[in-house]
Amino acid sequence: MTLAPDHSGGSSDDHADSAEAPSPARRTYSYLGPAGTFTEAALSQVPEARDQIWRPVRNVGEALSDVVEGRSDAAMIAIENSVDGGVSTAQDALATMPGLRIVGEYLVPVNFVLVGRPGTRLDDVALVAAHPVAYAQCLQWLTARLPEHAHLPAASNVASAVGIVDGVSDADAAIAPPGILDHYDLELLAEGIGDNANAVTRFVLVSRTVVAPPPTGADKTSLIVELPEEYPGALLELLEQFATRGINLSLLASRPIGDALGRYRFVIDADGHVRDERMADALLGLRRFSPKVLFLGSYPRADRAIVHYPDRYSDDVFVEARDWLRGLISGEPEG
Amino acid sequence: MTLAPDHSGGSSDDHADSAEAPSPARRTYSYLGPAGTFTEAALSQVPEARDQIWRPVRNVGEALSDVVEGRSDAAMIAIENSVDGGVSTAQDALATMPGLRIVGEYLVPVNFVLVGRPGTRLDDVALVAAHPVAYAQCLQWLTARLPEHAHLPAASNVASAVGIVDGVSDADAAIAPPGILDHYDLELLAEGIGDNANAVTRFVLVSRTVVAPPPTGADKTSLIVELPEEYPGALLELLEQFATRGINLSLLASRPIGDALGRYRFVIDADGHVRDERMADALLGLRRFSPKVLFLGSYPRADRAIVHYPDRYSDDVFVEARDWLRGLISGEPEG
Amino acid sequence: MTLAPDHSGGSSDDHADSAEAPSPARRTYSYLGPAGTFTEAALSQVPEARDQIWRPVRNVGEALSDVVEGRSDAAMIAIENSVDGGVSTAQDALATMPGLRIVGEYLVPVNFVLVGRPGTRLDDVALVAAHPVAYAQCLQWLTARLPEHAHLPAASNVASAVGIVDGVSDADAAIAPPGILDHYDLELLAEGIGDNANAVTRFVLVSRTVVAPPPTGADKTSLIVELPEEYPGALLELLEQFATRGINLSLLASRPIGDALGRYRFVIDADGHVRDERMADALLGLRRFSPKVLFLGSYPRADRAIVHYPDRYSDDVFVEARDWLRGLISGEPEG
Amino acid sequence: MTLAPDHSGGSSDDHADSAEAPSPARRTYSYLGPAGTFTEAALSQVPEARDQIWRPVRNVGEALSDVVEGRSDAAMIAIENSVDGGVSTAQDALATMPGLRIVGEYLVPVNFVLVGRPGTRLDDVALVAAHPVAYAQCLQWLTARLPEHAHLPAASNVASAVGIVDGVSDADAAIAPPGILDHYDLELLAEGIGDNANAVTRFVLVSRTVVAPPPTGADKTSLIVELPEEYPGALLELLEQFATRGINLSLLASRPIGDALGRYRFVIDADGHVRDERMADALLGLRRFSPKVLFLGSYPRADRAIVHYPDRYSDDVFVEARDWLRGLISGEPEG
Repeated sequence: MTLAPDHSGGSSDDHADSAEAPSPARRTYSYLGPAGTFTEAALSQVPEARDQIWRPVRNVGEALSDVVEGRSDAAMIAIENSVDGGVSTAQDALATMPGLRIVGEYLVPVNFVLVGRPGTRLDDVALVAAHPVAYAQCLQWLTARLPEHAHLPAASNVASAVGIVDGVSDADAAIAPPGILDHYDLELLAEGIGDNANAVTRFVLVSRTVVAPPPTGADKTSLIVELPEEYPGALLELLEQFATRGINLSLLASRPIGDALGRYRFVIDADGHVRDERMADALLGLRRFSPKVLFLGSYPRADRAIVHYPDRYSDDVFVEARDWLRGLISGEPEG
Repeated sequence: MTLAPDHSGGSSDDHADSAEAPSPARRTYSYLGPAGTFTEAALSQVPEARDQIWRPVRNVGEALSDVVEGRSDAAMIAIENSVDGGVSTAQDALATMPGLRIVGEYLVPVNFVLVGRPGTRLDDVALVAAHPVAYAQCLQWLTARLPEHAHLPAASNVASAVGIVDGVSDADAAIAPPGILDHYDLELLAEGIGDNANAVTRFVLVSRTVVAPPPTGADKTSLIVELPEEYPGALLELLEQFATRGINLSLLASRPIGDALGRYRFVIDADGHVRDERMADALLGLRRFSPKVLFLGSYPRADRAIVHYPDRYSDDVFVEARDWLRGLISGEPEG
Repeated sequence: MTLAPDHSGGSSDDHADSAEAPSPARRTYSYLGPAGTFTEAALSQVPEARDQIWRPVRNVGEALSDVVEGRSDAAMIAIENSVDGGVSTAQDALATMPGLRIVGEYLVPVNFVLVGRPGTRLDDVALVAAHPVAYAQCLQWLTARLPEHAHLPAASNVASAVGIVDGVSDADAAIAPPGILDHYDLELLAEGIGDNANAVTRFVLVSRTVVAPPPTGADKTSLIVELPEEYPGALLELLEQFATRGINLSLLASRPIGDALGRYRFVIDADGHVRDERMADALLGLRRFSPKVLFLGSYPRADRAIVHYPDRYSDDVFVEARDWLRGLISGEPEG
Repeated sequence: MTLAPDHSGGSSDDHADSAEAPSPARRTYSYLGPAGTFTEAALSQVPEARDQIWRPVRNVGEALSDVVEGRSDAAMIAIENSVDGGVSTAQDALATMPGLRIVGEYLVPVNFVLVGRPGTRLDDVALVAAHPVAYAQCLQWLTARLPEHAHLPAASNVASAVGIVDGVSDADAAIAPPGILDHYDLELLAEGIGDNANAVTRFVLVSRTVVAPPPTGADKTSLIVELPEEYPGALLELLEQFATRGINLSLLASRPIGDALGRYRFVIDADGHVRDERMADALLGLRRFSPKVLFLGSYPRADRAIVHYPDRYSDDVFVEARDWLRGLISGEPEG
């Protein structure tokens, strides 16, 4: 990850700087800034974003509004972390802002250091600045090593450390990406403090509603579904729409609808593409079950892992069954 | 029921007699004879069969062969009895003879008397002639009243009594339809001996493969399905194809495939018509689940009872979901 | 199979003959006579029945009544045939006569010959005497070779041929077990006429209610279950009681309850023993689902095939879960 | 809610102050401080906590460690919010710290104001201090009214405002409970800014493992379950354990196990008590399905709403089925 501290407090970065008179052909990408965040690292994985305008924003709602309202062509947002789980603000924003489609998925490995002002010793640390997601990912280490610490939430993984450097924060130490030390004069108090060495954050690139990218065999379909009514077994029926078509779910998260305790919508990532027969059939079943199905898109998986499924759910089985039914209805003798 | 004893031993009846030079426009209907059987009573319920050629045959295989080989336009066969259950020979014949379709369903109330040669007393009866289905329907009465009787199976409900009259049978008594007494000199030993006063036999009219009669809202679809492999839960999965589309089954019978103990095919009557969206969708699911699905037809129910089902499975829900999916795939913004 | 034609018309056989003064210790077994039937062959497989009193009866109801009313200690009855399916009269009798238990299962291979009076030629055969189950097992052969035959049902596989010998039947030929030729002067018209060379009939030995024989690992549990009410999915729920405990069903047959068309009870053979934890749990679930569960017994399978099931349904998993729950309720800390 | 600003920065509150020499009989309750938080409001609903020692702590891990290690008798922790959903740090702490039990549930209505230093105007606000959960609950209002704001996370709903008063925070405004104005000299910039007027936070009181409080008819059972392996349908099978016993789930949340993307544990609140027969049976099924079931307790619902369920799942149905099975096994004739 390349940190760009000179832009950390600003509303633009070096990409944006060079775009004062954007040609009509250049595209704009919104992302959680400042430069140096994991989100920027995710955006740097997008080949089409190279040499385009990168627009740092301050929260996921702003990033998605940029897309809806035409200020950006796409937004990169964090959607899930392997340790902390779904990013609920991103999930809720996608659930309530119409007209969006996920068109790509990206993974960024995450690792953290604990830094303080020069001269700070680990034993002196009482107040730790950290973005809440980063904090959650270091909680076991903190509980073991600094059991009496308090948490001062920060707005981003860069802002946590910048606050210490600038003196605006009264935290004793900050959790930040390792690259922070290349750019700021900070004391390294501990490194590799993440609770899981393989921790990774999953990002999605979101555009306005478009035709889905073509199937690759290694695709994912994202949905948000509200159960039609509250009765024992409604979620069961939702899940059966997938299980009965051999479709595995890689994500199932519940989010409160917000009107009352106990009312949820479900955020779902299903293996496969809307143009796979079994997925199309599952979506039909889902829509008949609940009119409140939001299709967020079908797009290639970040890990490019081919989706495996039982032969009985292959496209030709679906096509053959339709041919058979057509024959029945037209009164043809059975083969 | 009209008995026609003068034809009871013959291979034709009064309808057939009058058909010595059939005009090309006349249709032929095969049925289990002789005249006077319940099957003939079922055929007399078919308006289109009036003044056509009625062809009495000796077993269900012959009746269906007549249709397959073009000797008849349709065959009336008994398929289920409210007391004895499915008529297994009929079910097995339908399962193994290709090119047939059920086009109509008819119900005939059944009631029985016990008759003997003049002078016979009930207490003298040791051997009872009866068609096996009739026998089963009177078994409680026989067990209670004649606990030590033996059963001599007869080929039809008329043949049982005729054997006694003719003296070719050494039975002491016969189970027969009540009308038998109008035509033969027999002693009435007991009447109303059926175990269920509301007993009824269900018949189906079978033709060569044709386009199904149009949906009436009170339809039935008949199928024979072989499970794809033997594993715990295969039948469960078959039944779910119907349950998950709100389709009730009025008949589920298992019949051995015949190659080994424990291997079955399932005879199914499902409420609804192949041109109902939910039924078409269930058939697609069924066919994908098992390539061995035999569609026997969709036709009006004999009782004309309108099929009720939850609103969520109505045609417009299916149509709406397809429109929605089409929009998704084409990249239209959601309404 | 040993035929005993000298007893074919009688009410006793050689076993019974020798039992004129039965010692109190001798047990009585009822079976469908006369001697020479497949049922007698099944009874001869029972070691405990050797040198006991064998009581031939004329129908399954009589056999079971003998047991209920104490005239016999047990009855051997045919319950299913690999070609023709469940023996419905036996299933219905078990469903309606309380106080019975199946204690053993036996398999008898079945094969048939076609016989006539001396001098008869196959091409002359028009009327074929046969027990209906035997008839069904030879139907393909008959349809191909004697397409225009008629069927004269007989009371047993021995009585069909005896009628021809005695001249009381006007059939031209009879279907019988091959051994018939050792005992009667009959013309062999065709042999091996059964449609399936591996055809087998399954018999069960029925006693009054007793403690089930101990589990052997190769056991079967027989049940008759009435669905609690008619709604889409009730049968599904019944089957789930087994599937969710890893229990395979070797038989599922529907039988009409008899009060109205479309009302069924289900005859079930499930792999395993009531003293297996998973089976006991399934029975509890079944009973809660429907108060109309008739337990017909757990007994060793005729084929002695060990029942396989997933490890997760083994007895120790059930025992461990109960221990765990007991700990929870008593407030013990989790291990 | 009673705010106690004089303790806001301290490690004790007025309850604790009065407890300098605690008598052995006094109990200690840990809660997220400082005084004035919603958590303190939840604790004030506990009759048994009155006049006991209240111990403010800085994070949920510390609160639960207090209980595990004996420093406190119980801890009050926020577990779910009607707008923001499950409190993931609390769920994860319960999942990984053994020896705890939930013994009570409490609801606190939540409402928010936006406050600034005296003289601040709403239009000047660029940086908003807020606890992340409070922030999420006001996001719609903020997006509409302050679309370009940035978020400065705060450690609690009191600390957000205190930072402004003390001048240690460079935020322009803070989101806080309405009572904050009674205790600090702050400018009210907006009130009722929560996106849902009925927003409520759910708290649970956690003790060491004890016998569950007795059933009240209005109980809840909390569980954390890890799926046994990743296969399509595993979650379905988990949910069926409840649905097949008529048990409704009021909460189902997925939390990453943390070892890899796509591996989840499920946090479940089920209606009913472990001493209800249907719940005990569901727990047995669950434990057999997955050895990784963590029972967090059965306790009265905060809303005291009686749990309704179909009659077929009542205790006596379970008891009756067990009696029936016991009779079967002992060989008693059926009633």
